[in-house]
Amino acid sequence: MRSGMDVRIGVIGTGVMGADHVRTLATSVRRAEVVAVSDLDQERARAAVAGLGDIRIVEKPTDLVAAEDVDAVVVASHDDTHEELVLACLDAGKPVLCEKPLTPTSDGSLRIVSAERDLGRRLVSVGFMRRYDPGYVAVKDALRQGTVDAPLMLHCVHRNAEARPNLPSSALIAGSAIHEIDVARWLFEEEITRVTVHRPRRSGRVVGETSDPLLLVMETTSGVLVDVEVFVNAQYGYDVRAELVGETGTLSVDDPAAVVLRTTRSRSTAVVQDWRDRFADAYRLELQDWVAGVAVGQQRGATAWDGYAATAVAEAGIRALETGSPSTVHLEPRPSLYHD
Amino acid sequence: MRSGMDVRIGVIGTGVMGADHVRTLATSVRRAEVVAVSDLDQERARAAVAGLGDIRIVEKPTDLVAAEDVDAVVVASHDDTHEELVLACLDAGKPVLCEKPLTPTSDGSLRIVSAERDLGRRLVSVGFMRRYDPGYVAVKDALRQGTVDAPLMLHCVHRNAEARPNLPSSALIAGSAIHEIDVARWLFEEEITRVTVHRPRRSGRVVGETSDPLLLVMETTSGVLVDVEVFVNAQYGYDVRAELVGETGTLSVDDPAAVVLRTTRSRSTAVVQDWRDRFADAYRLELQDWVAGVAVGQQRGATAWDGYAATAVAEAGIRALETGSPSTVHLEPRPSLYHD
Amino acid sequence: MRSGMDVRIGVIGTGVMGADHVRTLATSVRRAEVVAVSDLDQERARAAVAGLGDIRIVEKPTDLVAAEDVDAVVVASHDDTHEELVLACLDAGKPVLCEKPLTPTSDGSLRIVSAERDLGRRLVSVGFMRRYDPGYVAVKDALRQGTVDAPLMLHCVHRNAEARPNLPSSALIAGSAIHEIDVARWLFEEEITRVTVHRPRRSGRVVGETSDPLLLVMETTSGVLVDVEVFVNAQYGYDVRAELVGETGTLSVDDPAAVVLRTTRSRSTAVVQDWRDRFADAYRLELQDWVAGVAVGQQRGATAWDGYAATAVAEAGIRALETGSPSTVHLEPRPSLYHD
Amino acid sequence: MRSGMDVRIGVIGTGVMGADHVRTLATSVRRAEVVAVSDLDQERARAAVAGLGDIRIVEKPTDLVAAEDVDAVVVASHDDTHEELVLACLDAGKPVLCEKPLTPTSDGSLRIVSAERDLGRRLVSVGFMRRYDPGYVAVKDALRQGTVDAPLMLHCVHRNAEARPNLPSSALIAGSAIHEIDVARWLFEEEITRVTVHRPRRSGRVVGETSDPLLLVMETTSGVLVDVEVFVNAQYGYDVRAELVGETGTLSVDDPAAVVLRTTRSRSTAVVQDWRDRFADAYRLELQDWVAGVAVGQQRGATAWDGYAATAVAEAGIRALETGSPSTVHLEPRPSLYHD
Repeated sequence: MRSGMDVRIGVIGTGVMGADHVRTLATSVRRAEVVAVSDLDQERARAAVAGLGDIRIVEKPTDLVAAEDVDAVVVASHDDTHEELVLACLDAGKPVLCEKPLTPTSDGSLRIVSAERDLGRRLVSVGFMRRYDPGYVAVKDALRQGTVDAPLMLHCVHRNAEARPNLPSSALIAGSAIHEIDVARWLFEEEITRVTVHRPRRSGRVVGETSDPLLLVMETTSGVLVDVEVFVNAQYGYDVRAELVGETGTLSVDDPAAVVLRTTRSRSTAVVQDWRDRFADAYRLELQDWVAGVAVGQQRGATAWDGYAATAVAEAGIRALETGSPSTVHLEPRPSLYHD
Repeated sequence: MRSGMDVRIGVIGTGVMGADHVRTLATSVRRAEVVAVSDLDQERARAAVAGLGDIRIVEKPTDLVAAEDVDAVVVASHDDTHEELVLACLDAGKPVLCEKPLTPTSDGSLRIVSAERDLGRRLVSVGFMRRYDPGYVAVKDALRQGTVDAPLMLHCVHRNAEARPNLPSSALIAGSAIHEIDVARWLFEEEITRVTVHRPRRSGRVVGETSDPLLLVMETTSGVLVDVEVFVNAQYGYDVRAELVGETGTLSVDDPAAVVLRTTRSRSTAVVQDWRDRFADAYRLELQDWVAGVAVGQQRGATAWDGYAATAVAEAGIRALETGSPSTVHLEPRPSLYHD
Repeated sequence: MRSGMDVRIGVIGTGVMGADHVRTLATSVRRAEVVAVSDLDQERARAAVAGLGDIRIVEKPTDLVAAEDVDAVVVASHDDTHEELVLACLDAGKPVLCEKPLTPTSDGSLRIVSAERDLGRRLVSVGFMRRYDPGYVAVKDALRQGTVDAPLMLHCVHRNAEARPNLPSSALIAGSAIHEIDVARWLFEEEITRVTVHRPRRSGRVVGETSDPLLLVMETTSGVLVDVEVFVNAQYGYDVRAELVGETGTLSVDDPAAVVLRTTRSRSTAVVQDWRDRFADAYRLELQDWVAGVAVGQQRGATAWDGYAATAVAEAGIRALETGSPSTVHLEPRPSLYHD
Repeated sequence: MRSGMDVRIGVIGTGVMGADHVRTLATSVRRAEVVAVSDLDQERARAAVAGLGDIRIVEKPTDLVAAEDVDAVVVASHDDTHEELVLACLDAGKPVLCEKPLTPTSDGSLRIVSAERDLGRRLVSVGFMRRYDPGYVAVKDALRQGTVDAPLMLHCVHRNAEARPNLPSSALIAGSAIHEIDVARWLFEEEITRVTVHRPRRSGRVVGETSDPLLLVMETTSGVLVDVEVFVNAQYGYDVRAELVGETGTLSVDDPAAVVLRTTRSRSTAVVQDWRDRFADAYRLELQDWVAGVAVGQQRGATAWDGYAATAVAEAGIRALETGSPSTVHLEPRPSLYHD
């Protein structure tokens, strides 16, 4: 990094998530300068940068990683491309913020962990933005302060308004519940060891064969039980909530509503329609912290190890879904690089 | 009263309120037996008692008051009839529960107070049912326990979905805000001394000349300030709320919602459409307490004095509305019959 | 029943629940007259009726059942006595409201079902009072009206402040979760077929060997998934909540709070300390409906079959708790007496 | 402004508010560079910039305004200094964000308005940050969309935990209620014409002669009624709320709570202790928008005219407080510079 200067960022993938990152970085993040973006669909890339100043479009993502004027990289392209791109960043010695999941399988994540371990320093951050959400942060703070004493259970709800037709059922775990997997690991600072998946009746609103909703039940090393309803065709909106049950009380996090409307027989607050609204602040704070970390040579947020562990738990969940039986999580030993 | 037996009740007036009292007494109040009802509209009277057993229709309300088998009377007929009927009950030595307001003017109420004072015992109860609402009761209990220390202000909202066309503006005070007048007197156990009325722009939904909404500002003997929004064409529903501000905190009472619905982009609870839903429990408890009191020869709930004081405050409010200036409340001395 | 007269009731068991029923019947239920109570502890029996008028104490519960002046019986004694007492009521041809669980095991409940079937008419009601709670009733109404379309899941929380030391873990299912078992059967109008029990880490506040909390996961005939957290040493209070997830939305029921207190850095509502506060209204409405039904010769509320089915599900839950594996519910065919 | 470069900012006044602005600008605002601060108390100035990089301390605020490397100025010093400093910024042709109130009296604000009118372009922004609060913004958006039809009333509560001893009563209006004055003007896009002030009994917690709390009642041109409780010794926390009443419904804004704690008999959310917590987001967004505007040569947020009008309303309020009678607001004609 050039000291005292802005962090020059290249963003790979300008779909919904990537385009949102580009806009946030270019309007609300201090010391960030988006210099280049790359996308298979150049039209989409152009749309993503329109009106945001002088940002060039790079055809090949690996060229973007290699570019002289790119200090750090955001990877928000298709999950299948994550491993290659993150490894390229490690090769180039450039900090990278990779959207979740780090890779589709734990093997890929493990290769990233190994490469980083060999490099001897942490350059990879994984986009588990809930670690920056003020509500989740307040829950973690209260838990640490002993407000509810030792944790026993965590009840989670993760609902999306609609998913694409024929979404593989495994995506409810690997793509959605993976957030709760990371939240649990981060809150309790311990690993998840076992996963059971219960299948309710499929919603009649599901288009295709997706088994939706699902109920995951996970256990941590110390025996905390984490249950997660994942329902990606909930119709009414995007709704993420959690209640942590401790020995002397509970802590609940919901989408805080600033405005109450009373009209036509009801008193109501709005339910957002997607994660960008619900977690706008978390994404901004995540990007701000990442950029501030890059500027001083520090990795911030979830690590490659966190990314790997989450995919390993998700894999166990997918096995449990397929077999109908509880499944044990297999984790390699944690390299000392990730002991902090 | 015949000891150990049911209280035989006659109900005068079977409009919305009266019919509701008949039904509550006949289905949910212990030791109550409705034996007779009376209404100008005999059809309406018949409808009110249909399916509730053997209840006779009495043409003249004074006959109902005089009837041998009527132990106690509920007056829920037109406000203009209250004075005559309550005085008839006093003459007959029968307990009477009179709907609010006790009478349209304070003169009439004062005549009732005088008659009762001359009789030397309290037979009149006034239907200020909020004194029985669990929320208001909890606020009063907390206030007495010093939960928020000494009271300073009370903010009130009193909204109805719709009023009849050309309702006199004075009815917003004498018919609606009179509940808040009684609530303030009951909560703070002191009199209201002065009333100011502010007129916002009239709602375009008002049919006719009613000045709706209004904002009343009242002061009690010790200087507690009570403001009341009265809005009888609020369209969206019946909404009664209050916040008591004390020296160290506040107590708010709202319509408690048992069920939260999440659907189509919103999280909502129902707003009721009229007072019967909002205060069903308060009415039932009021009637139960009244009947239990009658059975043991005790007057319960708001007294004739409370009815008189409330009408005197309402009159001051109506003067303030008409003159646009603050108006002082004139109260006669309180007879010792009402010192308890 | 003597037509037009009060229902003369005998109450067996004057512990917390029984004494509460006596008081409610004697002060708030129309057409109910408690004429006799019975308890192993005569001191406790006397305390339960003190100040409630002329109620005699009967030493032997079976004498109370047989008494000429007892029209109907409430059984609120120890669970182990239910079967004998309910059968005695059937023998005597007297309506009986039996507290939950109907019997400790499904065998006992089945014997009651058989006896009632042989009798050919329904006299037994089971005290599943949540069927009368305004919140649960509103959820059922909304579900029937299609407000959230077809049901998929029901998330439940059932917490008590404290349980007695060394409470058998099975009691969390047979004594507590049995309410959620009945709620699910009643809401969805179908049977529960399978139960899994997950054990979180035991709370350090538990005195003795009780496995507390537990997480039950149950499936209904059509595949609705019902999860229930049971936590009987939750310390902070009595807390019962549920969220029904439908295809287009959700319905949540919580303890409605009438008053919000703002003081010393917090905005709060009270959490009750036991079920009597939370479900006072439900108990009153249940007793009122039961008495009104007795007066006209109709059985109301949960039937002996409902009581049997709930114990059968609880037994499957206890097997699942002991074996650590999912357990199937065994139900005998439903006699036509219970087809309505 | 140097195109494409950061906006170099000087901050005058590093008390609570100023120090907070320095920290926000230096950590969370894009394209902002704090280059200099000034404060009477140099120790305080040094503390405010500690750890925030290379920011110099300038002894005389006018030197800071004049400094070559200062592009724009934030004025957060004592209210009495605002006029001189803002005029100096206008002289220097530099954009300035001045904390509220623009000046202690309307005369001073009018001189700023005149100077800016003579200059022919708007350089002054006033720190009415609620215009950036997501809750208030949502209320304004909903109002514009007709969600509750035409506005009729606005009920406001503005509470601080504690004020300094012997705070002049006028400060409750000029320092606190001035936010609600601006909110009302901004929401309804019309002027306030009349103010009445009601005095409740003084809280026993007030140290000194401050008349606390107060209730202001204000009217706008079209007759919308705005009532404001100002209570600066409310003890329990900082609490700002509002309910806008329209012809078909209402919109309420409160401090959204992300986390609900259940413990020891209560369900609670935190009440913040000061405005920095409540409006942290609003301040950040205000500063971000101001900096973005400076970078492109545009004035953003409340104008000098808004600052003037608010002080004129506050003056009328202070007259009303002193005289006990309604007071009319006197406003000079609005220069065309402020017609947009």
